Amino acid sequence: MTLASWNEGPARSAILDYLERIAGVPPADRIAVVDNDGTLWCEKPTYIQAFFMLERAQADPTLPLDELAQVLLEAHAGLTTEEFDAAVLEWVERFRHPRFGTPFTELVYTPMLELLALLRQHDFRVFIVTGGGVDFVRPVGAQLYGVERDDVIGSAIEVEFQRRDGRIVLARTATLAGSPNEGAPKVNAIHAHIGKRPLVAIGNSAGDREMLEYAHTGSLPSLCLVVDHDDAQREYAYSGEAATNPDAEPILATAGRFNWPVISMRDDWSRIF
Amino acid sequence: MTLASWNEGPARSAILDYLERIAGVPPADRIAVVDNDGTLWCEKPTYIQAFFMLERAQADPTLPLDELAQVLLEAHAGLTTEEFDAAVLEWVERFRHPRFGTPFTELVYTPMLELLALLRQHDFRVFIVTGGGVDFVRPVGAQLYGVERDDVIGSAIEVEFQRRDGRIVLARTATLAGSPNEGAPKVNAIHAHIGKRPLVAIGNSAGDREMLEYAHTGSLPSLCLVVDHDDAQREYAYSGEAATNPDAEPILATAGRFNWPVISMRDDWSRIF
Repeated sequence: MTLASWNEGPARSAILDYLERIAGVPPADRIAVVDNDGTLWCEKPTYIQAFFMLERAQADPTLPLDELAQVLLEAHAGLTTEEFDAAVLEWVERFRHPRFGTPFTELVYTPMLELLALLRQHDFRVFIVTGGGVDFVRPVGAQLYGVERDDVIGSAIEVEFQRRDGRIVLARTATLAGSPNEGAPKVNAIHAHIGKRPLVAIGNSAGDREMLEYAHTGSLPSLCLVVDHDDAQREYAYSGEAATNPDAEPILATAGRFNWPVISMRDDWSRIF
Repeated sequence: MTLASWNEGPARSAILDYLERIAGVPPADRIAVVDNDGTLWCEKPTYIQAFFMLERAQADPTLPLDELAQVLLEAHAGLTTEEFDAAVLEWVERFRHPRFGTPFTELVYTPMLELLALLRQHDFRVFIVTGGGVDFVRPVGAQLYGVERDDVIGSAIEVEFQRRDGRIVLARTATLAGSPNEGAPKVNAIHAHIGKRPLVAIGNSAGDREMLEYAHTGSLPSLCLVVDHDDAQREYAYSGEAATNPDAEPILATAGRFNWPVISMRDDWSRIF
């Protein structure tokens, strides 16, 4: 069943070759870091988290972007981390994708689930390293990807230590904790959280470049993969466009320079969802 | 072999009773957070990390404390995270405890290793939550405690993303990242890193209080344990004194108020190391 939804081709071969090449690498060094939006699940017509935030904030999506961002941040300020968790779980049960009509569990790329399973068979620990909110992905990570809460790294909101009726809670603020988790901050976050340079890194946009380069420039053999959205029929075609980072080098150009295998969704995957 | 170095008594009974009481709690909820210095290993005559820092900085230990702290921070600025790692591993091989003459591996409390093993047998994930430097504990966590690098949470130094000869590295600065990991910040760090309220929390000083209270005030049954250093003969006697937080309520008084079991090193442990 290994990579059952992957067509024969260079991406599949690169993965299988790599796993043979690292036969001597100790399990403790086998760390994989994987982007989420656009790498593990669909990020169009917009990020799934954005649908959640817009509904929760009952915000006008036509607001100027900076005003909209602040409205969205403030919508959850004061909620405890446990209340926010419950709100995410309640919402994802109801959400249906506007084009596909499917629940959130059906927006995950089947070939990627097969790849995660194969990596784990080879003793890899798989971490999600997302630009999205860590508190949005954690409640669903185990169900979607078999990734536990502590193995999700993402953008975070400052939380405030409080005693409420003798109970310690953490209350969300409207302030981002540190930088958004895109670009070089992904590398800093990997150090802060994992404390080790990864061997495998997978992404789909310029925000993943530094993370892939970090894996690529370690002393052990690495595997860096870039997902190319080139299948308008079955999903979307927006090849390497970086919504959050429009001036950066397109990730497909970076992949070309570093000789990183590119996964063509159209050619390499026999099914998407 | 379960708790072989624990004498019959209230602490041992509290642990065994608790593990029976949570028979119905799902494995995913079984999170244990454990302090390091004075809880898992000896912290006297001073923190083991302090010996490392003083040697590395070749600092005069009689300097005023604030000057000393800055000298120690600056001693490693510019080192890459990988170089710092190697420096820790090189040093711990040479270190001998001034009183016991033993290497660092012999400064770990045997009964605590038995307790960690018992918790893992009961499907607990064990995280170290230390006030010490996360980058000091990570290189030794697997060897000492069977705790992987990503399961260590501690005080951290800001690192700087750099390209050196085409290679991405993270260079240490002389600036602490956020707050020292003591008191309420331990709770924030547990949320940031684990994303879940722990059920079991173990500490030995006022810096652990909020972490224990966080476990204590969750909705599932919790076990909070306080290690009491009351054995001057086999180790040290300094019961609940908080070196880093002298004005706080002594942790033994807190334990009394919350009815947390106290581990008497003298009475509850048949061996220490």
